[in-house]
Amino acid sequence: MNVNRFPTAITEPLFLSAHDVAALVRELGVGPCIEAIAKNIFEDFSRWNAFDKSARTAAHSPDGVIELMPIADAKHYAFKYVNGHPKNVAANLPTVMAFGVLADVATGAPLLLSELTLTTAMRTAAMSALAAQHLARKNCTTMALIGNGAQSEFQAIAFQVMLGINTLRIYDIDPAASEKLARNLLPYGFEITICKGIADAVRGADIVTTITADKSNATILTPEMIVSGMHLNAVGGDCPGKTELHPEILASAKVAVEYAPQSRIEGEIQQMPRDFAVTELWEILSGQKALRKNDLEVTVFDSVGFALEDFSALRFLLKCAIEMGLGERIALIPPLQNPKDIFGFLYANTCGADLASPAHQYNLASMMAYALH
Amino acid sequence: MNVNRFPTAITEPLFLSAHDVAALVRELGVGPCIEAIAKNIFEDFSRWNAFDKSARTAAHSPDGVIELMPIADAKHYAFKYVNGHPKNVAANLPTVMAFGVLADVATGAPLLLSELTLTTAMRTAAMSALAAQHLARKNCTTMALIGNGAQSEFQAIAFQVMLGINTLRIYDIDPAASEKLARNLLPYGFEITICKGIADAVRGADIVTTITADKSNATILTPEMIVSGMHLNAVGGDCPGKTELHPEILASAKVAVEYAPQSRIEGEIQQMPRDFAVTELWEILSGQKALRKNDLEVTVFDSVGFALEDFSALRFLLKCAIEMGLGERIALIPPLQNPKDIFGFLYANTCGADLASPAHQYNLASMMAYALH
Repeated sequence: MNVNRFPTAITEPLFLSAHDVAALVRELGVGPCIEAIAKNIFEDFSRWNAFDKSARTAAHSPDGVIELMPIADAKHYAFKYVNGHPKNVAANLPTVMAFGVLADVATGAPLLLSELTLTTAMRTAAMSALAAQHLARKNCTTMALIGNGAQSEFQAIAFQVMLGINTLRIYDIDPAASEKLARNLLPYGFEITICKGIADAVRGADIVTTITADKSNATILTPEMIVSGMHLNAVGGDCPGKTELHPEILASAKVAVEYAPQSRIEGEIQQMPRDFAVTELWEILSGQKALRKNDLEVTVFDSVGFALEDFSALRFLLKCAIEMGLGERIALIPPLQNPKDIFGFLYANTCGADLASPAHQYNLASMMAYALH
Repeated sequence: MNVNRFPTAITEPLFLSAHDVAALVRELGVGPCIEAIAKNIFEDFSRWNAFDKSARTAAHSPDGVIELMPIADAKHYAFKYVNGHPKNVAANLPTVMAFGVLADVATGAPLLLSELTLTTAMRTAAMSALAAQHLARKNCTTMALIGNGAQSEFQAIAFQVMLGINTLRIYDIDPAASEKLARNLLPYGFEITICKGIADAVRGADIVTTITADKSNATILTPEMIVSGMHLNAVGGDCPGKTELHPEILASAKVAVEYAPQSRIEGEIQQMPRDFAVTELWEILSGQKALRKNDLEVTVFDSVGFALEDFSALRFLLKCAIEMGLGERIALIPPLQNPKDIFGFLYANTCGADLASPAHQYNLASMMAYALH
């Protein structure tokens, strides 16, 4: 690592564009990135009580929602900005766009600003596969993948590298989406069957991943499709009014969630009574509880996405970017010679940050603490 | 305006660094910038009920706080990230650092990412002077300025350009801060007296601005200092446990606030009973109420800073930056050829955004709507 590549001042966080993160993922590989993020998620969920958690703030409009998802531990603060606009696709725009910031709790200084659209797809898949490692039967080989949109490749690769799933039964109401998925996965050596319907895809699967985009109470999976021992990875139901599973499936399964207060509003379990029993994943990942007791039970991971997963992903990005020399510093904060003199900055000859300043030293130390983690 | 200077894709918001905003302010002048922001604040507060308002989210730590301040109307969404770390100054770091985003409600796409450290100082001063235009007596000439730190120059200039205040009586516990303020204001033609104490500074003032940084219940102003007809612009008390005015001053004055639910927690009125009568500024600015009935009453603007002021400032910045050709586009969002194919972006040859894409056209139209506002 060449420290001089990073002339860090506290006023200049590292910026990772979508192109930078794509380069990072190409260099390391999609599977290894997902595994590394899953490792961070495991570490962070295992110290769940170290985090200051809150429900996300959401601004709803007729066309969609814009959310802020903050979280912090004693050292670092993170937030993600993310939208959800189902109509965007019809206008050839992405449905979900995201970016986020990792900051230093001791000073409030931002350390990293990064794209999170691509990264959200990776961290969601990492969370799904990590949950399945703890919830599904051992020796699963076949996964049904219902919904073959923007996140489907990442789910497939996550389950391949983390659970050894090599057989996929895929279905989407849009046949072009399934063809795209199969084409994108060609280099990965899956055995892929494009199925004629949901029931067809689910037949014979050990794990069923639902990741459809419809913003309405759709019943993607119905009770007669489910056989004993299955694990359901329910990713697409993630906001009020958007679910994928028939409530009877939930009633007769063991259900894990990320953060119950949020999942009861946004997840599949919004269909269930307020006291419906669920287990939070951190209890399972930290070894305090086990959900599956035998190979006959049906388990469900009711995934909605939680701020802590983005925190875990942001610290993966910062560490890799520093090690790989990716990204650029942006002057987000004025480099003040005197912190009581913002006005003076306006008329000062400030072409760059002062590398010998305490601010520089502080920020550099904080960033390096990550890189050496 | 040269549209071609802004090869806008929806994936590439405009980024304004601290240097860009400093250049913008140098070009237009501090006073005119503050006046323009005050005009936007007036417009936005006058349509108060058009906004989806919420209290800020705050992550507290032993050393400070990190906050997110979101707000939206039917067309635009904004948020500000801002910290408050009093100990930063001792380490030669800024106490307050801020940045923010303006986004498009219809698609969720970010339009602008900007520094807001410098801008927060301007918008706070703009809000103070706008409030004083409606709360202070007519023909005020003299202002006491208690606390001569980072925001004091902006307050002085705002009151000069918007109320004709040309005489300043200034005081700070740190004499160097007062000297810095007087030095920075030399080109502005004020008559400035550096005073020996708070009571000395307040004596003879028509308006008293308190903008101290101490994070504790300090009593900067006591009842015997206040004479009838004064207007108090109380800016420094802005979080739980941080106040500047003796409660008896509030009890016998007429008090205006930005957003009562937030001010009762963070403002001077945190010292008062929950039902203490206050008037929200939007009621005054929209002409529905008048606070001051005569020249003998004492009026108080209990300023804590509200998300709508940042919304107003961000739309000022975007309009000016587009007109002046400032800033650069950053690839915050992946430019997808197919919105269902994030994975394909990873391995596509995407060196830049597609200027003929619908995403481009949409974003350009949205930005221009601002520029032509």
